[in-house]
Amino acid sequence: MNEASDQKYRGQGFGALGIGFGVRPAVIVVDFQRGFTSAEFELGGSPLVNAAVERTAELLAVARRAGAPVIQALVGSHGGDDALNWKIPSVRTEFHYDKPACELDPRIFDPAHDVVIRKIGPSVFFQTHAIAYLVKKRIDTLVITGCNTSGCVRATIVDGFSYGFRVIVPEQCCGDVDTGPHSDNLRDVGRRYADVMSASDVIRHLASISPQTFKET
Amino acid sequence: MNEASDQKYRGQGFGALGIGFGVRPAVIVVDFQRGFTSAEFELGGSPLVNAAVERTAELLAVARRAGAPVIQALVGSHGGDDALNWKIPSVRTEFHYDKPACELDPRIFDPAHDVVIRKIGPSVFFQTHAIAYLVKKRIDTLVITGCNTSGCVRATIVDGFSYGFRVIVPEQCCGDVDTGPHSDNLRDVGRRYADVMSASDVIRHLASISPQTFKET
Amino acid sequence: MNEASDQKYRGQGFGALGIGFGVRPAVIVVDFQRGFTSAEFELGGSPLVNAAVERTAELLAVARRAGAPVIQALVGSHGGDDALNWKIPSVRTEFHYDKPACELDPRIFDPAHDVVIRKIGPSVFFQTHAIAYLVKKRIDTLVITGCNTSGCVRATIVDGFSYGFRVIVPEQCCGDVDTGPHSDNLRDVGRRYADVMSASDVIRHLASISPQTFKET
Amino acid sequence: MNEASDQKYRGQGFGALGIGFGVRPAVIVVDFQRGFTSAEFELGGSPLVNAAVERTAELLAVARRAGAPVIQALVGSHGGDDALNWKIPSVRTEFHYDKPACELDPRIFDPAHDVVIRKIGPSVFFQTHAIAYLVKKRIDTLVITGCNTSGCVRATIVDGFSYGFRVIVPEQCCGDVDTGPHSDNLRDVGRRYADVMSASDVIRHLASISPQTFKET
Repeated sequence: MNEASDQKYRGQGFGALGIGFGVRPAVIVVDFQRGFTSAEFELGGSPLVNAAVERTAELLAVARRAGAPVIQALVGSHGGDDALNWKIPSVRTEFHYDKPACELDPRIFDPAHDVVIRKIGPSVFFQTHAIAYLVKKRIDTLVITGCNTSGCVRATIVDGFSYGFRVIVPEQCCGDVDTGPHSDNLRDVGRRYADVMSASDVIRHLASISPQTFKET
Repeated sequence: MNEASDQKYRGQGFGALGIGFGVRPAVIVVDFQRGFTSAEFELGGSPLVNAAVERTAELLAVARRAGAPVIQALVGSHGGDDALNWKIPSVRTEFHYDKPACELDPRIFDPAHDVVIRKIGPSVFFQTHAIAYLVKKRIDTLVITGCNTSGCVRATIVDGFSYGFRVIVPEQCCGDVDTGPHSDNLRDVGRRYADVMSASDVIRHLASISPQTFKET
Repeated sequence: MNEASDQKYRGQGFGALGIGFGVRPAVIVVDFQRGFTSAEFELGGSPLVNAAVERTAELLAVARRAGAPVIQALVGSHGGDDALNWKIPSVRTEFHYDKPACELDPRIFDPAHDVVIRKIGPSVFFQTHAIAYLVKKRIDTLVITGCNTSGCVRATIVDGFSYGFRVIVPEQCCGDVDTGPHSDNLRDVGRRYADVMSASDVIRHLASISPQTFKET
Repeated sequence: MNEASDQKYRGQGFGALGIGFGVRPAVIVVDFQRGFTSAEFELGGSPLVNAAVERTAELLAVARRAGAPVIQALVGSHGGDDALNWKIPSVRTEFHYDKPACELDPRIFDPAHDVVIRKIGPSVFFQTHAIAYLVKKRIDTLVITGCNTSGCVRATIVDGFSYGFRVIVPEQCCGDVDTGPHSDNLRDVGRRYADVMSASDVIRHLASISPQTFKET
């Protein structure tokens, strides 16, 4: 991060307030689907994404043990007229719900615990029923991981914040094609909408949640 | 922009497809309210924002002549419990709808033509009636200007794209506290969601719209 | 309809203004899925619904010939934790996306033309991408058919109106378990949000649309 | 209610499951604004609405004592192009945010406790920030009162249900122009989305809430 530039933002109060965890967190995993996590695909195979998948798997094991809800999101379309105006060709041609690019990476998906949300746009919240599931579970805090930080993760953080949730981003659980845009976006959201923390700190917090928390209706 | 990094994104097809104008554009001006445009306020007074205000005023004169709808958005809250968890103190304490920080800059606001949208979050679309107004006017293209590029403008571009609109961003009509985050965000959205163009090219296009376009119901 | 009661509403101006067709209509078919249209299912087999399916099939043939977009909606859940608090047991237990109750009735579904929207709640618009598809197609008018008039059809009419569309309801293309609630709901929406018309009048209008209408982008 | 008809619905399982209160309720008051509650206005002066205002005032006193959040909603527009296609003339011409028809009835409004939501459509949730406020307060149950039962109250119940809340409707706290549509709509929502209860039972429940409930963050 450019220090002189950062100084300008800090001088106006950007990032001055923290957010912190509430009492009932859920984890949202953004687009760890094969189209992004497997090198067979044009958009797949980034080492940064691969590392984020592995770290997210560790975080999810702890979250599930605590009983926290987990949302697995994937992006795509029915393959016809309903796709948005994406400027990336393979999102239009390969990311169809019935094609391999839309299969969730088995390293992070537990069908017995997780709820799947199919989306057409960047945000997990945009015109999906994610919000209804989170309200039903009385969630107040979102831990957001996934890829790409500079695309769908960023959009999901903004919407999570806009819906009134506390948003926590474990840095090493998010990946991108390259480090520059990854860092730029964590910088922007950390100034305004979310607490950007180390994955270890977030995992430690999730491990400390009382097993009773999610047992009360 | 870092050339080697950009190469990685282009190699995967980011930005490969263009979008272009449709037939009925509207202009959305994001948060050119005194809290951002006037140096009296902690978040105000950036020269980049000031230049963007001036350039947007020129663009709006042409858009209004063509009969294109204009949305003026401002961010704030009622000043109580309803504010979101902003990490920037003055957004919570000064950006109240009845305070000066929420007055639109007179250089860009024409109450006889423009529709005002009050929002609580970054995006002009998040839980506001912007979408209903645009549907009623049969708009297919959004020209998005305002500040900050790395905050509310970015969020509005993402949602405009997600709602199925063609999104055009006139670069010199958007401002920020500093140039780095401004450019970083135009880079991200130009790869995925929107055509980033020069203000002159957008103004030239708006000037070419037939005066009949917005007269048909 | 109770005449004295209707007089009270008319005396206050309810229903005094008409709406009419715009220039680019789409048809939304609400929940003509086997769970409602086939007598094998607890919620299926109503003669009123069956008649509405047949009449909607006629309307759709004309709409497709004109090139008008068609949305086929169905209600259900993934079968787990994500279902809403429906008070009707079989909606929770049988209306799962991979079960027969969620298959669209073949009399009204043309996979080559129609877009399918899966929803969890009553309204076709609630947290689905229906709005993005309609914006992309520059639709200004919705013809809404389906079942039940007193449930999901009513909710879809209210949201279509709220999004700024002109809403037209062809009476004989909507069905319900019984005629009372069907009529009560058409009465309510006709007073406020939509033009309730005969199916013949709507079909005649759709037949009159110039084949060029949907060819322009 | 027509007994034979009701039998048909009950025979298919409509209304078979109850919902019940969760742990953190909020009260939503729909459109008790002078345009509906005062006889000076074309849409005002219904004795049923007046009785519902009085009963809601009693319920709110108990809810505020318990610390439960209260949302006061009102319907209108900025008075220009942004109004929806309402079929009722005075909603378009008199229900402007700066006119007397949009002032909340003082019998139910406590500015020190309540949050105000301005809306353009029937539902308190449609494109407003009601959902963000309720998420921030970790609400799981909505008590919905107001007018008209056959219009904005119905729409708000449907959306509250769709967002995953438990919805409770105290019958005597809702009003309408006439009793028929009031009862018809309570019948429809009680079969599907909400528990319709007596105002006394709801007040008794609110009075029993521990004063600690809303003190925990």
